Amino acid sequence: MRSAATPVPVQRVIEEFSRLPGVGPKSASRLAFFLLRSKGDQTEALANALLEMKQRTRFCSTCFNITIDELDPCAVCRDEQRSPHLLCVVEDPLDVIALDRVGLYKGKYHVLHGALSPVDGIGPEDLKIKELLSRVQQGAFKEVIIATNPNLSGQATAMYLNQHLMQLGVKVTRPAQGLPVGGDLEYADETTLARALEGRQSM
Amino acid sequence: MRSAATPVPVQRVIEEFSRLPGVGPKSASRLAFFLLRSKGDQTEALANALLEMKQRTRFCSTCFNITIDELDPCAVCRDEQRSPHLLCVVEDPLDVIALDRVGLYKGKYHVLHGALSPVDGIGPEDLKIKELLSRVQQGAFKEVIIATNPNLSGQATAMYLNQHLMQLGVKVTRPAQGLPVGGDLEYADETTLARALEGRQSM
Repeated sequence: MRSAATPVPVQRVIEEFSRLPGVGPKSASRLAFFLLRSKGDQTEALANALLEMKQRTRFCSTCFNITIDELDPCAVCRDEQRSPHLLCVVEDPLDVIALDRVGLYKGKYHVLHGALSPVDGIGPEDLKIKELLSRVQQGAFKEVIIATNPNLSGQATAMYLNQHLMQLGVKVTRPAQGLPVGGDLEYADETTLARALEGRQSM
Repeated sequence: MRSAATPVPVQRVIEEFSRLPGVGPKSASRLAFFLLRSKGDQTEALANALLEMKQRTRFCSTCFNITIDELDPCAVCRDEQRSPHLLCVVEDPLDVIALDRVGLYKGKYHVLHGALSPVDGIGPEDLKIKELLSRVQQGAFKEVIIATNPNLSGQATAMYLNQHLMQLGVKVTRPAQGLPVGGDLEYADETTLARALEGRQSM
């Protein structure tokens, strides 16, 4: 998208936007020119929010979710309303948001920051697994829910974690797999349908 | 997407990303968490590029395309390789980039910053039309190509401009409308097909 008609400062913004996931060069130009035309201080607001996010946040040293610098352990880890006996293991901070939105889960979290994937060279030492095992070893947790994604690497990670967690004498569970609510049975893939049948429950 | 598990600085970034066109709350979260995880100074690079773009750019006082503060009139307006007799009128700076990429056009530009749209309350005084007419009145231009978008408001703008430009004794043209190259005739809409037939040329 380089063009003599585009000044360098605008080209730099387009390039930086293009580096974001799911933003191609055309969308990046559109975003840059949208901000150029925007009234008020929208551009500054975005820039300052980005800088503040980078400067003021860190990973919680207990659960490895995102927290602000002044609050480590994070708000969820400190929350005494949440059960100290229940731990939910997820791949990503975004998964914590998704689960928290449901509002049903009232235990603690542990963020792995990825899933095992030998193909991509991601092994146990690249994830927060050692930290998870040492948290569980301290003995407060009675159940660990492994909520890694229901895909190949998520399943592999769950199986790996299960092997190690079982030795610590803790109950290990995994969220149910089956038909998504509101979905169509005829459009469900074979594996999902198989899981739904295997996991059938009496009405 | 507000959640107790998301620190305020991250929520602010998500909100600012959500205000961009085509970025929904889910993509905004994904972008924020991508940047949180990014190695190096990608977040700062984006933030600083945004601030510099806002601080160092302005609209060219001649053609109203984007230029840097130190360069007004802009590089295109100053470029003596470009014909001083040919003017291309577009709605947006992005249109200048698109035309410039083709590399065929070697005249000057004039950016209207929008198109006439009574429904949205956009009249002639909201666009750089007065400035266009005064540029043409100065007499150097022999042909004005009205390259506003081939849609309702773009066509209305072209007709409005044509009425006023004709009185200034300048030749007014509009880019050809017809079948897009590489497209399928059977998928062309009726209006496009009608224009393609009307504008047919001998082989």
